[in-house]
Amino acid sequence: MTPYQLSIAALLRHGAAIHADSVVRCYDGERVERCTYADVVADAARLAAGLESLGLGPGDRIGVGLWNTREHLAAFLAIPAMGATIHTVNPRLSAEQLTFVLADAEDRLLVLDATMLPAFAGVDLGPVEHVVVVGGVDDAAHAALAALDRPWTPHGALVDGRPETYEWRDGDELDVATLCYTTGTTGEPKGAAYTQRHVVLHSLGECSANTLAISRDDVVMPISPMFHVNAWGLPYTAWLAGADLVLTGRHVQGEHLIRLIEQERPTVAAGVPTILADVLRCGEGRALDLSSLRLLMSGGSPVPRAVVEQFDRRWGVPVTQALGMTENGLLALARPPAGADREEAIGWRSRTGRVIAGVEVRAVAEDGTPLPADGESAGELEVRGWWVVGSYWNGRGADRFRDGWLRTGDVGTVDRSGWIEISDRLKDVIKSGGEWISSVAVEAAAMEHPAVAEAAVIAVPDERWFERPLVCVALRDGARLSPGELRAFLAERLQSWWLPERVAFVAAVPKTSVGKFDKKALRRQLQDGELEIELTRSASDAPARP
Amino acid sequence: MTPYQLSIAALLRHGAAIHADSVVRCYDGERVERCTYADVVADAARLAAGLESLGLGPGDRIGVGLWNTREHLAAFLAIPAMGATIHTVNPRLSAEQLTFVLADAEDRLLVLDATMLPAFAGVDLGPVEHVVVVGGVDDAAHAALAALDRPWTPHGALVDGRPETYEWRDGDELDVATLCYTTGTTGEPKGAAYTQRHVVLHSLGECSANTLAISRDDVVMPISPMFHVNAWGLPYTAWLAGADLVLTGRHVQGEHLIRLIEQERPTVAAGVPTILADVLRCGEGRALDLSSLRLLMSGGSPVPRAVVEQFDRRWGVPVTQALGMTENGLLALARPPAGADREEAIGWRSRTGRVIAGVEVRAVAEDGTPLPADGESAGELEVRGWWVVGSYWNGRGADRFRDGWLRTGDVGTVDRSGWIEISDRLKDVIKSGGEWISSVAVEAAAMEHPAVAEAAVIAVPDERWFERPLVCVALRDGARLSPGELRAFLAERLQSWWLPERVAFVAAVPKTSVGKFDKKALRRQLQDGELEIELTRSASDAPARP
Repeated sequence: MTPYQLSIAALLRHGAAIHADSVVRCYDGERVERCTYADVVADAARLAAGLESLGLGPGDRIGVGLWNTREHLAAFLAIPAMGATIHTVNPRLSAEQLTFVLADAEDRLLVLDATMLPAFAGVDLGPVEHVVVVGGVDDAAHAALAALDRPWTPHGALVDGRPETYEWRDGDELDVATLCYTTGTTGEPKGAAYTQRHVVLHSLGECSANTLAISRDDVVMPISPMFHVNAWGLPYTAWLAGADLVLTGRHVQGEHLIRLIEQERPTVAAGVPTILADVLRCGEGRALDLSSLRLLMSGGSPVPRAVVEQFDRRWGVPVTQALGMTENGLLALARPPAGADREEAIGWRSRTGRVIAGVEVRAVAEDGTPLPADGESAGELEVRGWWVVGSYWNGRGADRFRDGWLRTGDVGTVDRSGWIEISDRLKDVIKSGGEWISSVAVEAAAMEHPAVAEAAVIAVPDERWFERPLVCVALRDGARLSPGELRAFLAERLQSWWLPERVAFVAAVPKTSVGKFDKKALRRQLQDGELEIELTRSASDAPARP
Repeated sequence: MTPYQLSIAALLRHGAAIHADSVVRCYDGERVERCTYADVVADAARLAAGLESLGLGPGDRIGVGLWNTREHLAAFLAIPAMGATIHTVNPRLSAEQLTFVLADAEDRLLVLDATMLPAFAGVDLGPVEHVVVVGGVDDAAHAALAALDRPWTPHGALVDGRPETYEWRDGDELDVATLCYTTGTTGEPKGAAYTQRHVVLHSLGECSANTLAISRDDVVMPISPMFHVNAWGLPYTAWLAGADLVLTGRHVQGEHLIRLIEQERPTVAAGVPTILADVLRCGEGRALDLSSLRLLMSGGSPVPRAVVEQFDRRWGVPVTQALGMTENGLLALARPPAGADREEAIGWRSRTGRVIAGVEVRAVAEDGTPLPADGESAGELEVRGWWVVGSYWNGRGADRFRDGWLRTGDVGTVDRSGWIEISDRLKDVIKSGGEWISSVAVEAAAMEHPAVAEAAVIAVPDERWFERPLVCVALRDGARLSPGELRAFLAERLQSWWLPERVAFVAAVPKTSVGKFDKKALRRQLQDGELEIELTRSASDAPARP
């Protein structure tokens, strides 16, 4: 007999029945408007009825390009709970990529914030039959809409006056609830298809006391956009727990965040290191009270220890590294062991993280053999678990799976307590003389230099060692640094055979649509001869080892 | 494609991989022996190999009658993780009931603590092919074993020398993992069949911050025996969280518990009100430090507010009511809202509880119509959810299910925040003049009288009102109380038409095998004329209302 389904309808009903008075606080850049869970439930019902009126229903994909708003939260709940799939669209993708993902997802409808319309210039909407626009449509937006060449409806016209209740569908927990495309630094974007079951189990996992411990007493502020790994699942998790939510709109600059933290006093927030660094910059020398935050998760790329330290020293805020992927949400959290003192805790919280209940992580050798969990044996990390996808949308990326395990593309170690250390991306690791050099470690060392704003390391071919590291450095405004000085600085921090012989000074390191270093672009620049390479020492001076 | 299963094998592997050093502390009545999760994993592997050597494997049921011991924990993990079903056997059942449950479960093997052998005198082992005995076998035990008429093996001989690793089976999450019989105060015992999925989801639910928030920093002491609702699932939950466990053996008397709490400093414990009252009695007038307990759950029957108060006043221990059933583990927890002061919190924690994420609870009218969640509309409570069974073993008790909802047999209300108030068992409620009188409320009022040790209320037929309450009172040693005095006392606490006209003074209220008032037995005594009924006032003096 069919068990009671792990459905988003059940999750929605729970919040509606038990936490009707929990509050969603929505920021428009100037003020915060409050509504209750009960209001959002009514929003969701009206949206579902509106979507039905356009002929949409179970099994359909609906593309949604919205900031972190009340309308987006209602769509997160309503679309899967009516049996359809919400495809969260990242407006920072290129027009080519947007064209691709809309076609790949076969979206029948596109819900767009008016401010995102310019990003869709030149996009072929392909299967999209209709566009719904949220927010005011000015002349420029009108022009952009005309260019999209589809009928469109303002969001208000779609939902106003519709009934405030809806008979949500429990359906099949293996139906795809959310579709989120990986940003494709390698190859075409791949759709990570999260089933209803994945979403619910991930939410339960994030409520666990060992992980985020989100309860009805929390105020949760996702800083990451909801189109990026569903804001790490936090909207669903908060809903299951009945926590208040702070939705930032599109306003995630340091100044806005500081204002929101001081005013709304979130207890849990989550963002990428770049944003956290922006908060540090804006808060420099100011007397701020950010102490409401009991947990500030950092993910997406490794958090510099200095960021963790600064948040702790200035405001007593525990920045804690979280490991996750679009394909599986949260995998590991760098929560310090009980009894760690403040200084030790900073060290623990800067690490990659400890595996959480619900996922299994292992390192494997190049031939796929599992390596011991001894904290030393490094290999590609593979994961499987209750919220790890088993395939990509449309069967893409089948080579990323092996015996039911997802290959993460990360290189690292796992120890006997489940602590992971990621040393590099597999494709970025530099294979020098049969040994691996971690590009991330060399970058981190270079970025400790006060003159260095950014440093990205890629491999260059080498006759003797097969590959050697090239460090691409963007200096801070007005700073100066010679190749020899950089080398001397690195020599104090890295083993000698990791020291790069080559440096290229660049204006800025190219970034992907989610703000990560775009090493694919750097490699292309290298190949096209666009990087001006200088030697950090005599080329004849070979590395001491291996 | 098959998703990663919600299996006990996955749960077992998680504890083994991440929490190998967590500690299980086993009490034998005198001292505490410590072992690690890694030791228990090895125990489980040896047990699985031993069971295989007896020809047992996937799909088999294995009866297990053990106290809260290391061997029992290994069996909890190993038996489901090898694909079989653990049927936890309650030795307090009658010989007739034990004969019935072994046959109904079709147990092929029975694992028994030597001290439980006397309880099996007169039991027909039916389908059981073999008995495994844990603990020393003395002459009396030998005689008891001979009477059972089955080949038997000491536990040590079964497991010693076997390999310490085992390839656990993920199997099918809908396989039955645990089988636990309801104690059958009405009709024959019914087997609550908990699937692997139920167990895992329930564990995730109990780890949630809104519920028990069990983390690796906790020390969990189940006081309820593991054969009673799987000790409320706590062994599995602790394992998933990596919490230390305190296993009490068979030593759950107040004096033992006080010693264990002071010495092992558990943070979470769970027991029935009778046991908590025993701790209060033993601890009277002594300077004790029980402050390690951040949560002391009380369940099984309503906790008297006085017990909650006394634990708070004396030791600062928050006794918190939990609602659960054999059929579904935890349903609700009386966790106070944030901001409640100490006095208010005592009131909140004495209530029935607030629905937790993962289950839906509703009150329905006699015809099955759902009633509004307004905190006032009383009806039978029905539940469904991620860890609520959808049927009983062997298809029994089909009348307990309606449209996918389990009928709990409890009468109560639900409010718009999910707070439940149970007023009675449906079968115990007294139908007087078209209105319901809560037997539980009348009992609670009577038990507030200092002379009253126990009070149980059952219905007696009444010509005019259809039914009226009869209160059966057991007085404290040496105490005296007249029917008129009782009535006067109750008149200050109950509405006038609830006041019982009839009282029967008894030596003790009969109890079921799990220590609850056995009203079925009381009704039988009433029918057989064994209760001596006195009037609390003139019989002609009819109730004022209805």
